[in-house]
Amino acid sequence: MAPRPVYFDCDTGVDDALALVYLMASPEVSLAGIGTVSGNIDARRAARNTLDLLALGGRGDVPVAVGAMDPLTHSFDGGVPHIHGHNGVGEVELPPAERTPEAESAADMLVRLAHEHPGELDVIAIGPLTNLAVALKQDPSIADLVHEVIIMGGAALVPGNLSAVGEANIYNDPEAAQVVMEAPWQVVLVPLDVTLENTFEESDRLALAASDSALNQALADILDLYFDFYVGEYDRRMCALHDPLAAAIATGQITATRAPNVPVVVDDTQGPGRGQTICDLRYQRNGPKDVEGAHVRVVLETDQPLGPVLLERLLGYTG
Amino acid sequence: MAPRPVYFDCDTGVDDALALVYLMASPEVSLAGIGTVSGNIDARRAARNTLDLLALGGRGDVPVAVGAMDPLTHSFDGGVPHIHGHNGVGEVELPPAERTPEAESAADMLVRLAHEHPGELDVIAIGPLTNLAVALKQDPSIADLVHEVIIMGGAALVPGNLSAVGEANIYNDPEAAQVVMEAPWQVVLVPLDVTLENTFEESDRLALAASDSALNQALADILDLYFDFYVGEYDRRMCALHDPLAAAIATGQITATRAPNVPVVVDDTQGPGRGQTICDLRYQRNGPKDVEGAHVRVVLETDQPLGPVLLERLLGYTG
Repeated sequence: MAPRPVYFDCDTGVDDALALVYLMASPEVSLAGIGTVSGNIDARRAARNTLDLLALGGRGDVPVAVGAMDPLTHSFDGGVPHIHGHNGVGEVELPPAERTPEAESAADMLVRLAHEHPGELDVIAIGPLTNLAVALKQDPSIADLVHEVIIMGGAALVPGNLSAVGEANIYNDPEAAQVVMEAPWQVVLVPLDVTLENTFEESDRLALAASDSALNQALADILDLYFDFYVGEYDRRMCALHDPLAAAIATGQITATRAPNVPVVVDDTQGPGRGQTICDLRYQRNGPKDVEGAHVRVVLETDQPLGPVLLERLLGYTG
Repeated sequence: MAPRPVYFDCDTGVDDALALVYLMASPEVSLAGIGTVSGNIDARRAARNTLDLLALGGRGDVPVAVGAMDPLTHSFDGGVPHIHGHNGVGEVELPPAERTPEAESAADMLVRLAHEHPGELDVIAIGPLTNLAVALKQDPSIADLVHEVIIMGGAALVPGNLSAVGEANIYNDPEAAQVVMEAPWQVVLVPLDVTLENTFEESDRLALAASDSALNQALADILDLYFDFYVGEYDRRMCALHDPLAAAIATGQITATRAPNVPVVVDDTQGPGRGQTICDLRYQRNGPKDVEGAHVRVVLETDQPLGPVLLERLLGYTG
């Protein structure tokens, strides 16, 4: 089977870096283009991190476009340096890539690729959904052209991470997320419900560090600070595989075993629930039931732990 | 130990009827007064149902006060006749009580009882929280006088029942619920997370029907329509024990084994999350942790199934 063309939207970011290298290493997909957005770090720095990682992995051919610096209705808050480092990649200095970002914006790139690959293109979005919303506003027809939109974001039946009910990617631009959920394309939402259950252990990190690949060694270094942050969640050094899980569901290496199509609305009020993905999961007690007309699959269970799958693919990548 | 004085606030209601009879049968508590509120049925009819049940059970001594006919900021929606019947008690005609409601309002009764039993009174609230909010506005000092407020309401990590995230008691008067959650008293919130896991089966209902007690026979009849409604939830005739669970936690027959004190805010916006009890349950992965300053215990797990405990107590009640 020919690899599926993918537009990848990211805010690289530590777990974005893992997801990016995973996709570079995945024969099931072909990275047609990458757009960046402000989230873990600002969109310009995210583009630089992405280009540096691509170059280190011998994939300097993949074009990277800088996307929205600010969310739709407010200013970027500056990211989360205590989690992802001041440079987004855990304070690690990557060898600088020669390639620079494209002249087109991320939203323009998405619109162009949707038209170049009608019915074929998958969108994998692992940051705030600003670029996707801008692209939809520019050209609503992309909702019909794109094959599927796989999103790391939201929290359905578990607490949020930036607020009691708000997950960071959605919380950072609820207005954009609502535009994306409303558009009539098939979305696969990969929320904290499953991403927090898929983890990388210190032994996995050390296996990357011991690899011959400069790219894997860099990933091991990048993960170091991130592992510290997760002590607050798991009580030991390890991390959640948020963004890589969305990527692995996109390649098909991980299968969603419970993922009903249900109505999903993003709370974009200024109230206490701002940034929540309100997933209508009523009447699902006796097994998953798709709701007629709904087009957002909420992933609540997957077939196997991602950790070993991810490690194997990263270690097998020769660039 | 002397029985604890209780002010009971209800919208009787099928499961309210079960909770009421359970409390009548419970030596751990003494029903100092009952207030009614519009929810399952309007407050006036709820008072009549309550008085009829009290009389049938030989407890015509308990005073009943009619409370708020309408929620704080809007009009009562008429209740849910397909669940609780047009009369609130599953279309069953109870023998009419001689006693009539008190002249005082439910909120006045609560304020009076709080002052009469300083530091002793428990409030058990199993309907919309309108009366409690009105009482707090009338006399904020009751927050210091009341021992504990046990509330059936909300949904923490499970879907709502009136909306994707809204449980009926809270959804029907979110403004009142927010007043109650904000007040500096100790609340024990008994949400759908646990109430849907505590059930009555058709065999339990038939055991009530076969009892010698006219009151238990009436309860069996009252439950009939309610059991039909729950086929949609459980795929067979049975019911959730929403209100009785709050009552059984209040008597101490059921112990909450996981119930952290956490910040709880009610979404009283007009947005898609209206009526949600937003419970901040982050950082609880490695066991329940009380959050400093929080005074709402959210019950997430209990020690034993309520069904058998409830049935035994109802069958043992001689009036």
